[in-house]
Amino acid sequence: MTPHPQMLTGTIIANSSGRSDSYVGDPVERGANDLQGYEEIDCHINGEFTVGCRKEGGEVYLPFSFLHKYFEVYGKLATYDGYERFEWSHSYSKVYYPKGKYDPRGVFMYFENYNVEVRERVKCVTAIEGVPVSTQWEVQGYYYPTQIAQFGLSHYSKNLTEPEPRSKVFEDGDKELASWEVPLGASLSRVLDAGAGSYVAQFNSPGGGFFSSVNKLQGDNEDSLPSGVFLKVDHVLDFILSLNLKLSGNSSFTVVLQNREKREVFHLHYIFSDLLISAQDQHIYHGIGLSSGWRRITRDLIVDLQKGLVYQNKPKRKLSRSKFKVMGLIFRGSGSLDNLTLSSSEHLAQFYDAARWFVRHQDPSTGGWPNPVKRRVAPGMADLEPGWYSAMGQGHAISVLARAYHHSGGDPQYLRSAVAALRPFRVPSAEGGVLSSFLGKFPWYEEYPTIPASFVLNGFIYSLLGLYDLKTISSPDYVKEAADLFDQGMSSLKRLLLLYDTGSGTSYDLRHFTLGSPPNLARWDYHATHVNQLLLLATIDRDPLLISTAERWIGYMNGKRAAHN
Amino acid sequence: MTPHPQMLTGTIIANSSGRSDSYVGDPVERGANDLQGYEEIDCHINGEFTVGCRKEGGEVYLPFSFLHKYFEVYGKLATYDGYERFEWSHSYSKVYYPKGKYDPRGVFMYFENYNVEVRERVKCVTAIEGVPVSTQWEVQGYYYPTQIAQFGLSHYSKNLTEPEPRSKVFEDGDKELASWEVPLGASLSRVLDAGAGSYVAQFNSPGGGFFSSVNKLQGDNEDSLPSGVFLKVDHVLDFILSLNLKLSGNSSFTVVLQNREKREVFHLHYIFSDLLISAQDQHIYHGIGLSSGWRRITRDLIVDLQKGLVYQNKPKRKLSRSKFKVMGLIFRGSGSLDNLTLSSSEHLAQFYDAARWFVRHQDPSTGGWPNPVKRRVAPGMADLEPGWYSAMGQGHAISVLARAYHHSGGDPQYLRSAVAALRPFRVPSAEGGVLSSFLGKFPWYEEYPTIPASFVLNGFIYSLLGLYDLKTISSPDYVKEAADLFDQGMSSLKRLLLLYDTGSGTSYDLRHFTLGSPPNLARWDYHATHVNQLLLLATIDRDPLLISTAERWIGYMNGKRAAHN
Repeated sequence: MTPHPQMLTGTIIANSSGRSDSYVGDPVERGANDLQGYEEIDCHINGEFTVGCRKEGGEVYLPFSFLHKYFEVYGKLATYDGYERFEWSHSYSKVYYPKGKYDPRGVFMYFENYNVEVRERVKCVTAIEGVPVSTQWEVQGYYYPTQIAQFGLSHYSKNLTEPEPRSKVFEDGDKELASWEVPLGASLSRVLDAGAGSYVAQFNSPGGGFFSSVNKLQGDNEDSLPSGVFLKVDHVLDFILSLNLKLSGNSSFTVVLQNREKREVFHLHYIFSDLLISAQDQHIYHGIGLSSGWRRITRDLIVDLQKGLVYQNKPKRKLSRSKFKVMGLIFRGSGSLDNLTLSSSEHLAQFYDAARWFVRHQDPSTGGWPNPVKRRVAPGMADLEPGWYSAMGQGHAISVLARAYHHSGGDPQYLRSAVAALRPFRVPSAEGGVLSSFLGKFPWYEEYPTIPASFVLNGFIYSLLGLYDLKTISSPDYVKEAADLFDQGMSSLKRLLLLYDTGSGTSYDLRHFTLGSPPNLARWDYHATHVNQLLLLATIDRDPLLISTAERWIGYMNGKRAAHN
Repeated sequence: MTPHPQMLTGTIIANSSGRSDSYVGDPVERGANDLQGYEEIDCHINGEFTVGCRKEGGEVYLPFSFLHKYFEVYGKLATYDGYERFEWSHSYSKVYYPKGKYDPRGVFMYFENYNVEVRERVKCVTAIEGVPVSTQWEVQGYYYPTQIAQFGLSHYSKNLTEPEPRSKVFEDGDKELASWEVPLGASLSRVLDAGAGSYVAQFNSPGGGFFSSVNKLQGDNEDSLPSGVFLKVDHVLDFILSLNLKLSGNSSFTVVLQNREKREVFHLHYIFSDLLISAQDQHIYHGIGLSSGWRRITRDLIVDLQKGLVYQNKPKRKLSRSKFKVMGLIFRGSGSLDNLTLSSSEHLAQFYDAARWFVRHQDPSTGGWPNPVKRRVAPGMADLEPGWYSAMGQGHAISVLARAYHHSGGDPQYLRSAVAALRPFRVPSAEGGVLSSFLGKFPWYEEYPTIPASFVLNGFIYSLLGLYDLKTISSPDYVKEAADLFDQGMSSLKRLLLLYDTGSGTSYDLRHFTLGSPPNLARWDYHATHVNQLLLLATIDRDPLLISTAERWIGYMNGKRAAHN
């Protein structure tokens, strides 16, 4: 019922100018003389504060600097086609329209646009396993399965969308032989290596490695470093280094980079250590672990440099690849190398680094990848203690593993790991799993398995994509479990989706329902993620709810609102 | 997790002026010459349309006429203290802060501000029972229990908040004797009436009544009306007529009103008929039913006049009481009258008209007051077929009856009716009751018992107030049923309240959840109702959720929003 229309009559105040249909202005129709009627006027905002405005006739003009703060809208002056205009944007995020039906063998969402490793909250990409290390919730760094999966999925996707990389092999011990500078007492020889199954370059320099501990790093400088076997190069643009490597203890290799303008020289040292990253001045250190067997190493040299600078609190802005060149490589101590290459990209190698990480670090008893940090989601929710699982992390990992299974031509280790990763989806949050339920009716896979439940929307949908990937890509024996979880999740999603709709945007989670707290509104990039996820789901599920909701949510990004009564 | 910060970096566009902290303007600091820097500039809104704006230095000014439409904010120019300013309002509604703990014996909410009978969707106040007739969902008019209850509650509340009414008795057959003009062949005498138990004025005019059917009304005009017993008065300001009346068939009485400026004369005819209302030109007809016994009639003459004008599609604006006067009364046919009075108000009489209506029209088998019209709440919900009950209507009726029970000093008919009115609260919507449930967990009393459920918030809370009124005012035997329903409802309210919170306002119902449709946002007067209801509930329930939510919702009315992540 309508409670008090007489109040409406008494208090509605509309624009007093009465020019309600004239708001699409056409300045061409106004002479410059009209501006003479301008005057200053105070605008009292809700009786709370005052803003300086302008008045012309019956129209009042309000400054954008106020509107920007009050409504969080965005604007900028732009000049093109010979005149200046002001561009008003209701939101700052982008909608990605799917190009076709979602295919788990193809790109993941729009992740070809991601560059996970340059994010500020990535401490470094560990040279031990080739995956990012997060500082988001713990400053010393930790392995965050969700981030590692996004790293893998972005490289898998880029591999499909980017042009074929440029690649130059410098030394393979066989066909490509480099001109090494071998100092007195050192040696470099090509030998047939039983482990590698091919000819490799074997080096030995008398100085050995120069590190036995991280502490010894202090005080090192270029001059005091032991010499090694040196390969001079003068290579621009391609900064993805890859090589097969077998190192003895205390051995190392170094890449020498130069800033071409400033002539500043940086040394990226990859050392026999389990150090994540360390740096002093122009020397940046990544540990490559303590393994003495063959391994394939892939490094984005510019990322390694950037992280070393950030480590020293140097300016964090993105480094421009065009400003650097590789001057040379130095191998110290003893070891063997093969297929030494510089490429414009090595997306598949980086993808497999992530996929192998998941195979290697899965808890065999639970199927989960633990998040090793304490996480407080909201006051009123119990903290997540180190070791918690995330449905988003599990789902993302499954998306990585399903693609690795497909791309590898059916390597069973990936499928086994992906199927094992389903287990936490059946275990309630209170028992260490990721399964919650909306009032006992609608199962929900929790990005953050909080008590009470948080029902984060985007994380839930990402977990559904993982389930969909596995159900689509796996052998029939395994389909049922993933398919059941997917179907059950889709059903919950459709039933609860509208609870996130605020009529002018979306909420990030349902903490307002479980805690009675204010809604945690999704900022525009999360809102856009919700939209992008729905658009993608709509390519694999015909329920019109998905597409109609996505379209309305797109409207919210352009200032549309749901109707009021 | 944060999905794509690099997109943020690339696309956030803020106010290009950079004057982010200058929005609280102080025009005194600017010289008039600054305005010379003004120029016209186009503003492109979300790439969709263009608005003519103004630019001064790095600041861009947008016209309020655009902002009014785009954001639905309100503004007006106001001059006082010697200068003009523009007053910006985010909403147009009012918050009523309770003056103390809510008392079911006192005013209902802020209903002393209501004037139900002047609402456009009230066809008339029937002269048969003294209650409003609604045209909201059916144009010929019907009894809408919710509206009748609001009529009663507003008069009960006004009786407590307004000053003592002025009142003038013109004729009581005993102490106050009027100077009647009795035409030839007619008579007026004071007699002791057994039914009334006092002296009354008995009249008889030979012309008898002048209506046997509504059809005969066509063509009537002042001159052709039969004469009657006439009382000339010249009374201003007090337009509530009340009298005890006993009429023979085809008798009537007429009140002659005059517009003091225009000298226009109106005839309000109250006729022996079950007609609701009819009118032609200056003649307006209300039926007083076909009963030949004594009754007390209370009429707001200005409301009756207004409804008669609306009936003829005359301008619907509110009539000003100061512009009219009562010129006289005419009694035609035969009958008796007593206690003929003109007052500034007769709130209690009008309240009891409503209370008696509820006692008289309750379905004895169900305890409900049927809504006799079909109601479509939303596409996708089954229509409510005529005869449906409303938890709001039941609750409001209980609020009326509880007050009548209290005010009458314990008249048991009111308490019996109120207690019987609880029955539909136990009957599911699908079985003709008003009880729904949120996912089988939280019972909900439905203003509109739709299938699927609609969960209208304000109607639910009004039903809770009815339950509270009864539990507070009734004898212990009856307390338990109402108390249980109230407690159960309050528990549901607290659990579900946040589902209505959009972070910048509230939704009217939960149709988005039950139908998957866009949220039905509450316009500001409904939002204010939500706030006012929570503030009131917070005086009888200490749960901090109520007051903290109300305070946040008040902030929304001033442009505040819940935080985004």
